[in-house]
Parts: sequence; structure tokens; C-alpha cells
Amino acid sequence: MQKATLTILGCGSALPTKNNFPSAQILEIRDKQFLIDCGEGTQIRMRQMGAKTNRLGHIFISHLHGDHCFGLIGLISSFGMLNRTADLHIHAQPDLERIMKVQLDYFCESLSFQVIFHHFNPKKHELIFEDRSISVYSIPLKHRVPSCGFLFEEKPRDRHILREMIDFYNIPTWRILKIKQGEDFETADGEIIPNDQLTVVGELPKRFAYCSDTAYSEKIIPIIEGVDCLYHEATFMETEKKRAKETFHSTARQAGEIALKAKVKKLIIGHYSARYIHQDELLDETKSVFKNTLLGEDLTTYEI
Amino acid sequence: MQKATLTILGCGSALPTKNNFPSAQILEIRDKQFLIDCGEGTQIRMRQMGAKTNRLGHIFISHLHGDHCFGLIGLISSFGMLNRTADLHIHAQPDLERIMKVQLDYFCESLSFQVIFHHFNPKKHELIFEDRSISVYSIPLKHRVPSCGFLFEEKPRDRHILREMIDFYNIPTWRILKIKQGEDFETADGEIIPNDQLTVVGELPKRFAYCSDTAYSEKIIPIIEGVDCLYHEATFMETEKKRAKETFHSTARQAGEIALKAKVKKLIIGHYSARYIHQDELLDETKSVFKNTLLGEDLTTYEI
Repeated sequence: MQKATLTILGCGSALPTKNNFPSAQILEIRDKQFLIDCGEGTQIRMRQMGAKTNRLGHIFISHLHGDHCFGLIGLISSFGMLNRTADLHIHAQPDLERIMKVQLDYFCESLSFQVIFHHFNPKKHELIFEDRSISVYSIPLKHRVPSCGFLFEEKPRDRHILREMIDFYNIPTWRILKIKQGEDFETADGEIIPNDQLTVVGELPKRFAYCSDTAYSEKIIPIIEGVDCLYHEATFMETEKKRAKETFHSTARQAGEIALKAKVKKLIIGHYSARYIHQDELLDETKSVFKNTLLGEDLTTYEI
Repeated sequence: MQKATLTILGCGSALPTKNNFPSAQILEIRDKQFLIDCGEGTQIRMRQMGAKTNRLGHIFISHLHGDHCFGLIGLISSFGMLNRTADLHIHAQPDLERIMKVQLDYFCESLSFQVIFHHFNPKKHELIFEDRSISVYSIPLKHRVPSCGFLFEEKPRDRHILREMIDFYNIPTWRILKIKQGEDFETADGEIIPNDQLTVVGELPKRFAYCSDTAYSEKIIPIIEGVDCLYHEATFMETEKKRAKETFHSTARQAGEIALKAKVKKLIIGHYSARYIHQDELLDETKSVFKNTLLGEDLTTYEI
């Protein structure tokens, strides 16, 4: 079984703290890595975790506040020093390319790989990337500046071939992949065995949604409905609800409400204001609404 | 007695490691803080140490490689969020202002304080800053790109007034400061007591030199001669001397040789290549040439 995992490199908010770097996380799915946001110190966290990043091809930036993108130039620069050759794709709002171009031209003049920017419109919910096994959709959020979450959706996985059928029909190894992908099997006698006698449905495709930074917004619910895992910001406690509203952030309780209403399977909270030393308070508040909540923590890997 | 201290926030080189962030250090002297270089994560290290930075007014950037300046935008941006009001002066080569302007315009639009750039010519040894108690001189280094160390020199401190003389002549408190600064004292009888009967020389002014990044260069010796403390890069071991030469860095042994020839009082090494897990090897190599050497370590404060 292929696991899908989320590794949180940083789940602090604007001001870093002793334990929390600014936003950055790696989604590993179908043997690929996707970096979501890239706050200052992202490459440092990667090195602290001994993370291998050779399968990291795409970076998604939710919005253009520094705590979500100041780590890009250092990461790219270090990839250059490590002689990376694979293209690096950055999905972001158009302004980022313009800002980064000045830095890339100066600091990363003779990079060993291409940095390719892909622009998306943060106000639209649409497919912004897909390959053979994954689709990524934008999720318009509600923030002081245009901000956008991301829905990662696996495409259907192969069917499971039944071991006893392989033995019964003497199915040769070289046919197995095609049968998993839905083909029927023709025996030596010319008998056609329909695929649904040989296979059962494989694992259900996983869905993961990243929603940060955002004020409480029910508009996202139809998009993230039923996801296996939702990462939702929980910058403040309910006691700071007014401040949350003013700054277009969510409270821990609101994160739980969104998870509940969207019937997600699991919620991970993060993007904590630096004022909270004991983040368990935030977790308790969310759990009072939505039980299957985990506290996001830096340098931690979660199963999706 | 006022102490002068050096706090190393990061003494790694281009690639961060588990223990070492890129270059950044705070010199505290005469109740002021000077930040020297500002690699990615500088503000994170400050928060990890609980460092107060309200006396930090001047930042000096040695050269425009990312591991010495990528932390600036995050630091400035956070100072803004913390409602800093004091001007922030950045001393650097002219290109930095141009590169940072694009970022500052976008991310730090309504800062609560001024960021003021001061340009210096890295090829010249000259006074680049002074105030009432400190002078800072540039030290041209030898690197792949123009690079510049910094010599911090205290201006002479006040003389020490002798307690027994205060008692003997009944010197009132309000005269003491002036006497420390060199004035004579006139008694109630009109007798003039010359200053050198009342005071002795105070503490000798401290001198600190920062030399990174640089290949071995004897040209710096006359400038740094006899400093109380020298921070000199020691990127490689002698076994990698060829690589050190190619990349315009120094070996641990070479750092020791410079310290010895310049007759400095104390040497701190740093800017270690990520390849060295056991940095004691580097320290041993330097010590074999110059005994009073300390291993630079992140999150550590040294007395000057």
C-alpha cells in the first residue's frame, strides 16, 4: 500500500516562535512530493529532518505574505548548489514571479535547473495542475490579500488483482499490470475472463485540502467536502474572535466548525499566533466541535 | 564594567545543517547591538534565543551571497509587525538596495520605521560608520564576489575615578562624570587638583574584527592587528585546501595563521562547510597554530 503523508515543516504564523517556523509543508503522495507554502527557513527545516527532496517538483504558494514565501529564494539557491537538474514548478499568483525574478537574476544566475512559474487566479476554483495520478484545484479563501487554498486529489488507483485468480488461471506476471488497470484476461484456451471476476476495487483515492490563510468561510465547504484530511488555519482562540475577524483569520473553534460542516475525515490545525505558548488550548477548543482533530506541529509527519 | 559580547546566531556556510544556520551574529557593545550578516532564519534564531533587539540600529552585510543576506526581508517585515519605530540602517554594497527595494515595496508597504541603506565600497579600507562610542571600518577581503569584513572599534572609554580621591576631596556626585572625562577638580578652597591625581586610565577600548567570506589573505593583517577578538571563517580543513582556494574560502589552519600573524588576542572560527559533522576537527586544526581559538557555535554568546 502506498501511503500518503503530510510533513509539517512550519505551522507558525507571521512571527516565528521557539517551536514554530512560518508556513511550509510537504505532501507526499504517489511517490511524489508537493511543497505547500515556503516560509523563511523551509530549507533549514528540511535539512533538520534529513528530508530528501529529489521527488519535489511542484511548489504551491497560497498567498503573497512573507511568512508563506520568504523561504523560496534560499531553497532554490540551495537546490542550485546541490546541482539539482529537474525543473522546479512554482504555482502562485503572478506578482510572485516579478518579485522573484530580481532575486533569481542576481543570486541564482547560472542555476543547473529551470524555475518555471505557473500563475493562477486566486478568486477562481479551478484545476491548476494535474499529472497521471494527481489533480490539484485552487480553493478561493477569504483573507486581507487574495489567498487560495489547494485541494489535492488522487486519480483513481489501480484495482486489486485477486491472488487466487492469478493462481487459478495461471496469469503470467507481464499481464498483471494491465488487468489491474481494467483489462479482461484471455486464457490459453481462448476463454475471456471478465475483469470484475479477477479484481476488486483498489484503495480509494485520497483527498487532502490546505486552507490557510483564511477567515471563517462556508464557501469552501462544497469544495473540501469529505476530504480525508483538512489542514485548516486556527490562528486564534475564540476569545480573540474579534481580532481574528479584523485580521481575516480563523479561530480554533471555527476550524472545527468548517471540518464538521464539510464532513471531513480528519482535521489538522496550524498557523498559530505567536501569543499561544500552550497550543493544547487551541486543540481542545477545536476538538470541542470536531473530535478527530490533530494539533499541527513542526517537524512532524501525519498520515493522510 | 560594560561587557562587549558576540552572539552567534548562525555560523554555517551556504547550506544550512541541523545545527548551523547561515551567517548572522550580534555584536553588543556600549549598550548597542550591531547585526553582522543576516542569513535566512536570522529572525528565527533571535526568537529562539529570546533576544531583545530594541537596541539594534545598524546591520552590516559583508557580501551579496544569499547565506549572508536572505534573512533581511523576514527580519524587517517582522520588525514592522512588532511596530518598531526606530530607523534601521543597512550598510551594504549598492546592489542590495536595488534588490531589496522590490521586496520592501511589495511586502513592507506601510512600515512603521525607515529602512535606510548606506553604501560602501568593498574594495576600500575606510571608516564606514561612527557614533559617539564606536567606529566601524571596512576590511576588503578576497572572495569570488566583492566581500568585506568589518572592524568594530570602541572609542576611548572614560577614565576610572579613584574612590579614595572622591572621599579625600569630598567630590560631589555631579562632578564625577566630567572628571571621568578628563576635567580637573577645583576644591572649595580654590585649589586645582589635576585630573591625573584623581583618575587612572579606564578600560582599554575593545576591538572586534569579522572576516567572512574570504580566502587566506595577509592583506587584512595590518588592519586587524591586535584585536581583542577576531571572527574568521574556517570553511574547510587543510585536506580540502585546493577546494578552499577554488571557492575563495579559508581552511581552519589558515584562520589560525592569520590570527597568529595579526597577534590577535582571541579567535573564533565559523562558516563551516556542511560536510563537517564533527567540527572539533576544525577547532583542533586551528588550535595547532593558534591556541586561543574558540569554536563558533549557533545560539552562543562569547565575551570579547
